[in-house]
Amino acid sequence: MKTYLDCLPCFMGQALRAGRIATKDEKKIKALLDDVGCMIKEIPMDNTPPETGDFIYKKIREITGVFDPYKKIKEESIHDALKMYPGLKQIIKNSDNKLLTAIRIAIAGNIIDFGVNKTFNLKEDMQQILKQDFAIFHFKQFVEHLERAQSILYLGDNAGESVFDKILIEELGKPVTYVVREIPVINDVTFSDAMDSGLDHVANIISSGCSAPGTILPLCNDEFIRQFEKADMIISKGQGNYEGLSSVDRCVFFLLKAKCNIIARHLQVREDDIVLKASNI
Amino acid sequence: MKTYLDCLPCFMGQALRAGRIATKDEKKIKALLDDVGCMIKEIPMDNTPPETGDFIYKKIREITGVFDPYKKIKEESIHDALKMYPGLKQIIKNSDNKLLTAIRIAIAGNIIDFGVNKTFNLKEDMQQILKQDFAIFHFKQFVEHLERAQSILYLGDNAGESVFDKILIEELGKPVTYVVREIPVINDVTFSDAMDSGLDHVANIISSGCSAPGTILPLCNDEFIRQFEKADMIISKGQGNYEGLSSVDRCVFFLLKAKCNIIARHLQVREDDIVLKASNI
Repeated sequence: MKTYLDCLPCFMGQALRAGRIATKDEKKIKALLDDVGCMIKEIPMDNTPPETGDFIYKKIREITGVFDPYKKIKEESIHDALKMYPGLKQIIKNSDNKLLTAIRIAIAGNIIDFGVNKTFNLKEDMQQILKQDFAIFHFKQFVEHLERAQSILYLGDNAGESVFDKILIEELGKPVTYVVREIPVINDVTFSDAMDSGLDHVANIISSGCSAPGTILPLCNDEFIRQFEKADMIISKGQGNYEGLSSVDRCVFFLLKAKCNIIARHLQVREDDIVLKASNI
Repeated sequence: MKTYLDCLPCFMGQALRAGRIATKDEKKIKALLDDVGCMIKEIPMDNTPPETGDFIYKKIREITGVFDPYKKIKEESIHDALKMYPGLKQIIKNSDNKLLTAIRIAIAGNIIDFGVNKTFNLKEDMQQILKQDFAIFHFKQFVEHLERAQSILYLGDNAGESVFDKILIEELGKPVTYVVREIPVINDVTFSDAMDSGLDHVANIISSGCSAPGTILPLCNDEFIRQFEKADMIISKGQGNYEGLSSVDRCVFFLLKAKCNIIARHLQVREDDIVLKASNI
């Protein structure tokens, strides 16, 4: 997905929010916004938004000297999600369609996103998404691919959401490789966040090699690319991964909540809709 | 009021919205955002936000070649407001406190603001604001000043809202000078908009000399400054005028709806609160 004009003010807003989490020094935050402002004219509009995100979060690290501003937030998100784990497992146990319920739970986890300008209430939003209609619902194709698959590549998105990914992986019943970001960016899931979420018990965890808040193939490492090419089934969580992979010539199952109107328009759904979309089928 | 860090992404959003109203040429809008982005580092944070607004809207005129992008929108707003005029006059006629009801109506008109990132429904919002509690309510002082005043200077804000200003001016019962912007900026009221709103029947209309979307005294003309100094009572509508005059050493009655959280925090109220605030009393 390319960069839209609406993304440009949003980049400034992201820089402000992240800058405030990294430091209380208003002068450093102003310096960050000055640099991001100047960067606008350098942004190729055919870049995907996470590629620009990569530059912004590098700038945040550079100006504030803080490598992982969202560390504490991520720990809290994982803690909160782990507390919900037993109750959600019970919901799945009592469910008529365990796989579909697990998919809903994994999508609900996608609200734990500090990159977008939205607040969330994990428990309330979870209840709502468990009942919400899908705007795109390629569940039949998902089941067909899953039945045939010997190996599944699962692209993680946010820390905390990763605990709900574990719940879905437990229902998939197939060998899964779980993919994390190379280094901390926003609240995206890294290797240590995935370990803290218990994903090592259900999946092989690898890094995409990408430091952007999304999966940008030209920025990924060889191991990931190999797995991306050979995996029987790819499950991609969240907006950042969708933005990076929406034009890729490969079947990918995108599980996400459309949290901004640009993504929503691109998917031809409405903002706040939930989506299970298979590309290239 | 100074510029806050939160204002910086908002300037980019304003440029995008205004650029889209001025032109359909995405390249021109991108050029505008590039320029506004680069301008961020030049913005003195002790400037008031409308001073930066002045630069942005100059840039819009320069890049798009459109002098008054909001012309049609302003005409429609005035048209819609004039249609409501008879009904609102009837509400005042049936009201226990005609002056207070007219103040509410004038504040409700302040929602017609295309500078902020909000949508509005004139009729519904009017009904709501007619019942809404004030977060700051210096009505007693307003009445005392009004009774003693021989001359009132009334600073207009938006076109359309100007029709509701006329309704308040009719209840003031004193000679009023109505102040408009020097040239079109966003949907702010200009001389011709004030004429179209019928304000020439109830007030003497003058320009502040200021092209910014607010009243910035150092940018105003001599005639306005003279009137500002000698007026017995000053009524100021809207956010832009408040941002320009909040620190001025002069009693000003600010009538507005707090449409962004920065203004709300500055006034120590909540977003969407309505305010009748006397400064320096």
